[in-house]
Amino acid sequence: MSQYLPGLEGVPATRSNISDLDGKRGILTYRGYRIADLARYSTFEETAMLLLDGKLPSREELAEFDRQLRENRRVKYNLREIMKYLPATGHPMQMLQASIAALSMFYPGDECLTGSDLCEDLEYVHTMSVKILARMATLVAMWEHIRNGYDPVEPRKDLGYAENLLYMFNGEDPDPLYARILDACLILHAEHTINASTFAALVAGSTLTNPFLVIAAAIGTLAGPLHGGANQKVVQMLREIGSPDRAEAWLEEQLRHKRKIWGFGHREYKVKDPRAIILQDMMMDLMKERGGEVTPLFEIAVALEKAAESRLGPKGVYPNVDFYSGLLYLQMGIPEDQFTSIFAVARCAGWLAHWREQLKDNRIFRPTQVYTGEAERDYVPIDQR
Amino acid sequence: MSQYLPGLEGVPATRSNISDLDGKRGILTYRGYRIADLARYSTFEETAMLLLDGKLPSREELAEFDRQLRENRRVKYNLREIMKYLPATGHPMQMLQASIAALSMFYPGDECLTGSDLCEDLEYVHTMSVKILARMATLVAMWEHIRNGYDPVEPRKDLGYAENLLYMFNGEDPDPLYARILDACLILHAEHTINASTFAALVAGSTLTNPFLVIAAAIGTLAGPLHGGANQKVVQMLREIGSPDRAEAWLEEQLRHKRKIWGFGHREYKVKDPRAIILQDMMMDLMKERGGEVTPLFEIAVALEKAAESRLGPKGVYPNVDFYSGLLYLQMGIPEDQFTSIFAVARCAGWLAHWREQLKDNRIFRPTQVYTGEAERDYVPIDQR
Repeated sequence: MSQYLPGLEGVPATRSNISDLDGKRGILTYRGYRIADLARYSTFEETAMLLLDGKLPSREELAEFDRQLRENRRVKYNLREIMKYLPATGHPMQMLQASIAALSMFYPGDECLTGSDLCEDLEYVHTMSVKILARMATLVAMWEHIRNGYDPVEPRKDLGYAENLLYMFNGEDPDPLYARILDACLILHAEHTINASTFAALVAGSTLTNPFLVIAAAIGTLAGPLHGGANQKVVQMLREIGSPDRAEAWLEEQLRHKRKIWGFGHREYKVKDPRAIILQDMMMDLMKERGGEVTPLFEIAVALEKAAESRLGPKGVYPNVDFYSGLLYLQMGIPEDQFTSIFAVARCAGWLAHWREQLKDNRIFRPTQVYTGEAERDYVPIDQR
Repeated sequence: MSQYLPGLEGVPATRSNISDLDGKRGILTYRGYRIADLARYSTFEETAMLLLDGKLPSREELAEFDRQLRENRRVKYNLREIMKYLPATGHPMQMLQASIAALSMFYPGDECLTGSDLCEDLEYVHTMSVKILARMATLVAMWEHIRNGYDPVEPRKDLGYAENLLYMFNGEDPDPLYARILDACLILHAEHTINASTFAALVAGSTLTNPFLVIAAAIGTLAGPLHGGANQKVVQMLREIGSPDRAEAWLEEQLRHKRKIWGFGHREYKVKDPRAIILQDMMMDLMKERGGEVTPLFEIAVALEKAAESRLGPKGVYPNVDFYSGLLYLQMGIPEDQFTSIFAVARCAGWLAHWREQLKDNRIFRPTQVYTGEAERDYVPIDQR
């Protein structure tokens, strides 16, 4: 028997050709392509295709996939009515898990539940992937309106994925700069090797369950504060600091008390998170171009980053992707408790790619345990206990 | 780096003192107590407590736990209204995943999502466990009525867990013999070491996500045909055989074509599944006592079992727990596509016990991958592809 390693750290759980991470050099690739290039030259739609199909699409292939996504944005009114019965105080990730599971019932897909070969049918896998990926954004944006007592904004077919997501949130023609930044954020969050939520998708998928149920399992996992919730914490932290001139003293205080600095450091990267570098550039561009419009939290972030550079940089601790993404989302009009939902929308592309890969060479996950409990013993009747 | 083993077969993923399985001797124990003893002397309520707390309760402790379960059976009318907007054609396991995730929004529990220490607080863990376990049965029974166009049957406080579940399904005072059999079935399905759904619960739970979301991840995983759906297949198979005198010829035909015989064999047991032995006894008792009332499928099952004894027994292949449980559920008025839901109701006790154990010594699951993909390469503009 293999050695027990908590959290399966260092234990290979799958063979995968989707993404790769070189933590020493700070390089993350999707299907071999560097994340920095994808953020600069690609779109979320194209990157999703790359993740799902394994190659960059031709112009025609991309146009067809994009058309399918646009056609699949609407969700039935049943979902709107269901959301009206959910308490507005609930977390959007709870809503999202419930809604994706509920959506599963509206689309042919329970074939998977009955054990046919459909799960290995590529067309079925593609169709279901489009149905899920297109509707994730709609559900997230719908909830924003419904929980505030308003009817949701219907999706538009004339907008790209990120543009339409922004439009559904704000009900206004999307700001092109914000849409471009959101598109890059979606690309940067779309995939990151085998993390906990992706692993949950593999485990669920390995029983050949319905893909909506697979994604719901992953959403429930991403919702945990140890996984998807850090960018929300960053914004809270910047608020707590209050003004740029307090950043350095605040940082010293935190370090002295050995308290966590949210948005700094990453288990996998020994150098600066490549996704953070891209987002930092975008934040600086945004500040230059829209000076007066941006939230004062940006100035605090810049001050904190500067203070941290000399104090934490030498230890290899740099701002990570969470440090910038929350700030950027806030600026676009996306509320803090929806940051993880946007993460889920993006990561859904990676989850679906891993689901597809799992089905191709499937074996149900059934690890063992190190039993540390009682040896076999006799039952004790209740009056003798 | 460790060796890659597909499905993590033979790889220990956790330390656990909840259940243990000796496949060679055919012994399954919960906290050291043999499953045969628990099915005979215990109740589902007591067994759930044993799994959750690690010891058989005193009379007072059991009465208090039972009282809490009875108090927590009702679900808010919102869930009834939500179910009305779900399509009746959807699978009950899809409904169950959606409903448990939706329920999370109604109960204080999102504390877990915000990263407080509540997740490690024993009282919080206990309270949430009761809230979830008590309501699982209610949701499953509610759906049976709502999908058929009727208002659900409200739970009763004067009945035990299994009795009340039967009552909510049929709307009549529960048959005591059926209730006793269902109670035993719940005990037998409550826990079975680290299977795929329990593992999904561990992975989700390790991010400190809300426990309703943990259970929803497990439900989505159990729904897969490779995991929870086999007893439904057994009933379909017995229908296909059609009459007892055709059982032997049908079996020969299946074996000749190397087709799967549903409800036979188990990856872990080299001898007869101990749970199957108990259910077989119950089936025989039921047939003796209620001769004329039982479904003709029972006679077909007995004939198939007999034919299989000489053909498969020498190879160590015996009927498993699925072979009998579906038949027994059918006899109690539970429709075939709800068998897996009943399994989920029972296994929820085990999932919650493992969730609690995971929190006590938590480390987020983040295994590695064997990367088999493309090496780093340059992005290719769309008109050069």
